[in-house]
Amino acid sequence: MNPILFLLVLLHLIHFCIAAPPFFHPLDPLNPTELDEIRLAIKKSHLGKLPNLTFHFVDLEEPEKKDVLSWLSSGEQNNPLHRPPRHAKVVVRAADSTHEIVVDLDTHSVKSDNIYNGHGYPPLTFVELFQASKLPLNFPKFKASIHKRGLNLSHVSCIPFTVGWYGEKTTKRLLKVACFYREGTSNVFSRPIEGIITQIDVDSMKIINYSDRFIAPLPKSEGTDYQSRKTDPKSSNCKAAKRRFTIEGHQVKWENWVFHVGFNARAGVIISTASIFDEEKKKFRRVLYRGHISETFVPYMDPTNEWYFRTFMDIGEFGFGRAADTLQPMVDCLETAEYVDGYMADANGGAQKVSRAICIFERQSGDVLWRHTEINIPGKVIRGGEAEKSLVVRMVATVGNYDYVLDWEFKRSGSIQIGVALTGLLEVKATPYKNTMDITQQTYGTLIADNTVAVNHDHYLTYYLDLDVDGTANTFVKSNFVKATVEDINATSPRKSYWKIVRQTIQTESEVKLLLGSDHPGELLFVNPNKKTKIGNPVGYRLITGQPVNSLLNDDDYPQIRGAYTKYPLWVTPYNKSERWPAGFYADRSRGDDGLAVWTKRNRRIDNRDIVLWYTVGFHHSPCQEEFPAMASLHGGFELRPTNYFDRNPLLK
Amino acid sequence: MNPILFLLVLLHLIHFCIAAPPFFHPLDPLNPTELDEIRLAIKKSHLGKLPNLTFHFVDLEEPEKKDVLSWLSSGEQNNPLHRPPRHAKVVVRAADSTHEIVVDLDTHSVKSDNIYNGHGYPPLTFVELFQASKLPLNFPKFKASIHKRGLNLSHVSCIPFTVGWYGEKTTKRLLKVACFYREGTSNVFSRPIEGIITQIDVDSMKIINYSDRFIAPLPKSEGTDYQSRKTDPKSSNCKAAKRRFTIEGHQVKWENWVFHVGFNARAGVIISTASIFDEEKKKFRRVLYRGHISETFVPYMDPTNEWYFRTFMDIGEFGFGRAADTLQPMVDCLETAEYVDGYMADANGGAQKVSRAICIFERQSGDVLWRHTEINIPGKVIRGGEAEKSLVVRMVATVGNYDYVLDWEFKRSGSIQIGVALTGLLEVKATPYKNTMDITQQTYGTLIADNTVAVNHDHYLTYYLDLDVDGTANTFVKSNFVKATVEDINATSPRKSYWKIVRQTIQTESEVKLLLGSDHPGELLFVNPNKKTKIGNPVGYRLITGQPVNSLLNDDDYPQIRGAYTKYPLWVTPYNKSERWPAGFYADRSRGDDGLAVWTKRNRRIDNRDIVLWYTVGFHHSPCQEEFPAMASLHGGFELRPTNYFDRNPLLK
Repeated sequence: MNPILFLLVLLHLIHFCIAAPPFFHPLDPLNPTELDEIRLAIKKSHLGKLPNLTFHFVDLEEPEKKDVLSWLSSGEQNNPLHRPPRHAKVVVRAADSTHEIVVDLDTHSVKSDNIYNGHGYPPLTFVELFQASKLPLNFPKFKASIHKRGLNLSHVSCIPFTVGWYGEKTTKRLLKVACFYREGTSNVFSRPIEGIITQIDVDSMKIINYSDRFIAPLPKSEGTDYQSRKTDPKSSNCKAAKRRFTIEGHQVKWENWVFHVGFNARAGVIISTASIFDEEKKKFRRVLYRGHISETFVPYMDPTNEWYFRTFMDIGEFGFGRAADTLQPMVDCLETAEYVDGYMADANGGAQKVSRAICIFERQSGDVLWRHTEINIPGKVIRGGEAEKSLVVRMVATVGNYDYVLDWEFKRSGSIQIGVALTGLLEVKATPYKNTMDITQQTYGTLIADNTVAVNHDHYLTYYLDLDVDGTANTFVKSNFVKATVEDINATSPRKSYWKIVRQTIQTESEVKLLLGSDHPGELLFVNPNKKTKIGNPVGYRLITGQPVNSLLNDDDYPQIRGAYTKYPLWVTPYNKSERWPAGFYADRSRGDDGLAVWTKRNRRIDNRDIVLWYTVGFHHSPCQEEFPAMASLHGGFELRPTNYFDRNPLLK
Repeated sequence: MNPILFLLVLLHLIHFCIAAPPFFHPLDPLNPTELDEIRLAIKKSHLGKLPNLTFHFVDLEEPEKKDVLSWLSSGEQNNPLHRPPRHAKVVVRAADSTHEIVVDLDTHSVKSDNIYNGHGYPPLTFVELFQASKLPLNFPKFKASIHKRGLNLSHVSCIPFTVGWYGEKTTKRLLKVACFYREGTSNVFSRPIEGIITQIDVDSMKIINYSDRFIAPLPKSEGTDYQSRKTDPKSSNCKAAKRRFTIEGHQVKWENWVFHVGFNARAGVIISTASIFDEEKKKFRRVLYRGHISETFVPYMDPTNEWYFRTFMDIGEFGFGRAADTLQPMVDCLETAEYVDGYMADANGGAQKVSRAICIFERQSGDVLWRHTEINIPGKVIRGGEAEKSLVVRMVATVGNYDYVLDWEFKRSGSIQIGVALTGLLEVKATPYKNTMDITQQTYGTLIADNTVAVNHDHYLTYYLDLDVDGTANTFVKSNFVKATVEDINATSPRKSYWKIVRQTIQTESEVKLLLGSDHPGELLFVNPNKKTKIGNPVGYRLITGQPVNSLLNDDDYPQIRGAYTKYPLWVTPYNKSERWPAGFYADRSRGDDGLAVWTKRNRRIDNRDIVLWYTVGFHHSPCQEEFPAMASLHGGFELRPTNYFDRNPLLK
């Protein structure tokens, strides 16, 4: 070997050994060093010379699933030469165009650059939102409006809202700004200065439209501050408990579970390659390849000029990782929690850190995991059982007024419980009314305080769940509970009815939509049709849901065209690396021409294939006075529960 | 005053002062002294001379609600002279008749005795069940059946089952006994000796019918024992936490809640006179007068001879208090729990104690009670919030194979969360099959182990909830979320749709049935129409349910005639002291001529009245292998949540 080449190879290997984090996983999120390298690579390329270069999205380019799986099963996870290629996907705006860029993280160079010409725009940056929020404060007409209302500009905070799409033939990147009066309160959202909307062109960062339609009384500040009745949280009487889980790199091990916790600006927490140890088979078995929240849709139910456009897609328009809040020990997470920081790129492409973006803690809820008392053995009473213990991975996304608490809870039984809590502040409008008795016109919400209406709205939180139940090829099966017919019953039986199970293998995407709801009793199973338990049951996990919540909007209403997937809470698609965001990647001002409802029109086969479950946790939210000035958590969620996945109860010897 | 009379009055008062427990409440359960007094009063009366006198039910006769409420509000709770009259209701069987007796607890005498001639029988006693379970073991035909199977009688345990009603014109008190083979396992239920049913006349305690139809392979004992993989629960690292609640008599005070915890043989835990302190109004306000589980219905879905009759009503046929299990510290309840014993009468009328029948503990679940982070105030980031803390009142009823964990969870937000967990053992039948591939005939369940089918079944747990939302007169209101019509929308709005609230006051019982399910989105509100918040919203609590589960049986099938109320999960009735048990008081062998479905046929008015909510937590249970040999808890429940009950969030200053 050429000695210089040899030296280069050696240096390369040394570089790997030194620079690589001790525990690598191909789905590791981009670390600060990588984010810097990406920014430099782009700045050094032809893109660096374009005007107004702004970074809207920087994430790991999803590696090929087969490469990740083969890395996982190779037994050579620590050998750098076995790592799948590592690329970043970057979306920038420059010269009023959207560029989709792939950066090679091994060579630190731009691999491709493609201009996106479809509808919709990438997520807004924090800088854009911040700048937009300040524009009205220096706008003469707005100052006049504030003056006319007898208010003091120094107490005004403005908040920009995305605007949706209402059939416009051509669109710009726009924001509409509403303003609030902070005087006497830290509850910014409680004192809307109603009647004014400022429209901003984001690319030029200029006000292009202004309307001051009417004056409504300013809700008073008294009673709007939110502070616990209790004093600050105190430490419990617990000595620091021994941590019963390990975090190596981004990999978490706890009890019978191993999984990877990632983070990006769009989804926030991402759970990957979750496997559970089977004590009978003495090996880890796969459950979930990738899981994360993939879109939120929050349409408000007020068609008036200042409110009709409030139909937010916070994940696509802004990002739940971007909105990840630094967690408060003892408030947001139990005392024994470990915290993980999150990293992402800011508008300039620089690495930005969110401290304590994720917490991981063991929860001893006080629930009973299993128990039994046996009295039917002569002379004995046998009691057995175990208290529930679980591991919670949590983040909080604070998106303006709302705070979403997002949990992944792993249980020793094999269940994964996905929990959502809605808390924070209601979005309110000012109204002349001080008593419901006086209301003569539709208010589109609940009068929750003097001059304050909290507007009705929905929340749809959609989860992307690439289940790999004991392997990649899975089938979705509806196990229907069907009333047996008279013919099913032996004439000698005194019974006239019972229910039996009629299994329905779902073969194509279109069959999925109508399988939920109380008129369709049954179990929703994701089975591996190629694997059976010892006694022949197909190995599976089932989805246990709460009451399904479907959008009530007209199909042809513009917000519903964009959020079409919210008509049904359940979708199943064949795995496709490019299908991750149910309202499309470019959700800001989207027109419904990308996303779950469009992809599934092809009605692809989903049996015995790598399939993805999309489940939406929905809320129709009619506010009440208890939710003011800040609301107690509203809870929702669902469970993925092993169902003939194990040969027997995995909790027991 | 006659000096002797004076002395008697004085002695009477002294008796009251000495004998009375320090904290009396008119809904206190019967204490051991009272149970003894009741037994003595009955034995001393004409009833004492009747043959085979057996006590089937001994409970506090429900006091007049108006008397209890007036006692509560009198401010003279400690004055014995202000106590409502205290009576016991006793049901005995004697000389093959059912007697309904009222005993006056002040005079210690039988006040009335009425022979019940309707259909159905009172709950079976433990002695009867025990005796019935032993009868086959000495029955020659049964011994021959065991011998024929090559089994050893000393390993056989038999378990009696109630038999329901299948159209018989006349009935007796019957039990059917199935037997199990204990050899090599403590999991009695896992080795059914299939094909044999022994029928027993309970009053004569004699076998009156015996059938041995077929032999099925005995499931093996290997792998049927259930023991945690973990070692015994260890104490956490917590020093004994300061108890943050008080128990005085049967009254519990915690944070803003005060309520009474009772217990009887039929319902188990009973929550009464629950009120919450309103910091704004500086007073306790009423929420729930009486709440408890009131019936369970567990029909199995197998019409064959040995299984068709398994359609249990455990509460009416046996009793959840009777089945209350002594709780296991650190397994059934958190380390910091306080325990309360339960008392009831045994078959001879003697006081019987269940140690640690109830536990009460503070739960710090790790959930977020409320939180918000505000970034829209220039130069500041304000974070606030609080971790969830709640008080749990728990009991476990072990009814044969199943263990039901029943929770009442009180939250500082004003919510009451009612939780149900199903755990224990599945009811299984022996089958020739060892692999699902070989199954050629309907098995009516899931093959969960070699030769072992767990039979499909339902669980319906019905709660009696006498809500008194801020007073006695309440109205049930459905707040429907209805898509607005085009006419509702101003033509200038770019929106084509939204949902609005259409409030529907439910005036009669029949209107209630069809208000649940995903086709009927809306809120289920219990309001006090005579009270408004400061800003005019009707004061209320709402019911938040999971997915409703309705019985799939034919209306004319006998089990469904008896459990007719399970066709709908939601009922609302006007308060009637005598209406407590939804399948009727005499549930054993009942014919559906008493109970919720019958009472509501009168279609009574329920608006602005004292009303009772009945909600059923249902499960269609298709077993899986993870539930063998013992099952991890399946969870269900519902929430009662204040909704414009408070003027503002009660958690906040």
